[in-house]
Amino acid sequence: MKQLLLIGIGPGDPRQITFEAVDAMRRATVFFMIEKGGDKEELARMRKDVLARYLPHDGYRIVRVTDPCRDGSAQDYLSAVQDWHRARANLYRQVMEHELHEGDIGAFLLWGEPTLYDSTLRVLDLVREQGMALKLEVIPGISSVQALAARHCLTLNRIGEPLTVLPARRLAELETLDNVVVMLDGHATFAELSDPNLTIYWGAYLGTADEILVSGPLMEVKAQIVALRLEARRRKGWIMDTYLLRREG
Amino acid sequence: MKQLLLIGIGPGDPRQITFEAVDAMRRATVFFMIEKGGDKEELARMRKDVLARYLPHDGYRIVRVTDPCRDGSAQDYLSAVQDWHRARANLYRQVMEHELHEGDIGAFLLWGEPTLYDSTLRVLDLVREQGMALKLEVIPGISSVQALAARHCLTLNRIGEPLTVLPARRLAELETLDNVVVMLDGHATFAELSDPNLTIYWGAYLGTADEILVSGPLMEVKAQIVALRLEARRRKGWIMDTYLLRREG
Repeated sequence: MKQLLLIGIGPGDPRQITFEAVDAMRRATVFFMIEKGGDKEELARMRKDVLARYLPHDGYRIVRVTDPCRDGSAQDYLSAVQDWHRARANLYRQVMEHELHEGDIGAFLLWGEPTLYDSTLRVLDLVREQGMALKLEVIPGISSVQALAARHCLTLNRIGEPLTVLPARRLAELETLDNVVVMLDGHATFAELSDPNLTIYWGAYLGTADEILVSGPLMEVKAQIVALRLEARRRKGWIMDTYLLRREG
Repeated sequence: MKQLLLIGIGPGDPRQITFEAVDAMRRATVFFMIEKGGDKEELARMRKDVLARYLPHDGYRIVRVTDPCRDGSAQDYLSAVQDWHRARANLYRQVMEHELHEGDIGAFLLWGEPTLYDSTLRVLDLVREQGMALKLEVIPGISSVQALAARHCLTLNRIGEPLTVLPARRLAELETLDNVVVMLDGHATFAELSDPNLTIYWGAYLGTADEILVSGPLMEVKAQIVALRLEARRRKGWIMDTYLLRREG
């Protein structure tokens, strides 16, 4: 049986990591660094910095794994994602077969919270279905949603109201936008909304030196956010951002 | 201007606290321990244990504050809560006026995540409206929702689906229960649901020695959870629990 730790390391500030996560890192012997290609070298470096900061020894190995690409042109979103997860499961199983030996404990360092819009746990469920016995342990981490709310001194929900967290592609379906946090919005979907009563609280690179925060009435600030996103993505090669939308009055 | 830190200390396990939270605790000189009366002495002790564990010195004061009670019999929920928040704002303002002197930094240690179904931030906004100048800083904490998901090795959302977090009193309004996390359910509202396709993932006292976990088809396990809740609440005098509901198939 292969032993694996899924460790949430927060949104970017190495101080936004729990003592439990550091304890888990210290137990691990092999770190699987999942990379998505492109200009994410900075993210790989940030994860290495976390290890260097918290591990007093170098008694571990780092195994870099490049994720296959998802077919972004597919008509059927769900089955495209499922195909992509299966391809990743095949790869992870092979890598773990090869790299995790008797007595090893593998670990994935995951940005934010491992159980919220992160697919590693789902991919490892597929690895299990392929017949590899896994002993999993999940260590929660501060999500970008929480960092966003903290930096804006914002309560995510209003009194007695629900909070909805969703991927940007589901935003158009919502009838009410009372407390909606949007994840994974690569296309600035908020800019397509035109309700004058919406307020947005937006943040990018939360917890890092590059953090950007903007809040205000959506109609007044959306052009500014779109411009900031474009400029930051051009400059850094990648962006991680999230936002809360709230209808006032 | 009074300086205040709202520090998330996680759901109960002192290791589920971030380094940022401990840095913040070390800056504070006065800790406001908010108590709700009743049998919550254990919660006060757990907070003191957190301070004893992480603060190497005793250069701080603890100020115990007993929250006024909310009028649970009121017909209008929203205005009853607003009245209650105003009463707390009056109290907090007086206590801070009296206890926070030049150079002091006050802190609230809050279970879970300060921006999610916690009203301290909202009450402090009312204190500001009453004319006291406050400099606030919010430090995110691991919420019980995250601890629940981690312990059940559960992804909170399914592929491309929204996650809804809500108070139990809003559960009956929902038409779809795909990924719903319920907070503040003092009355085991889940037991009133009868959809045979629902699965529940429940947890109480997450991260503590008293942790209880149950999951399975709602119709099969709900009686067991109701009995466990009653027994635990009787034994300990209080309960903190949360759960995720998901419709399968």
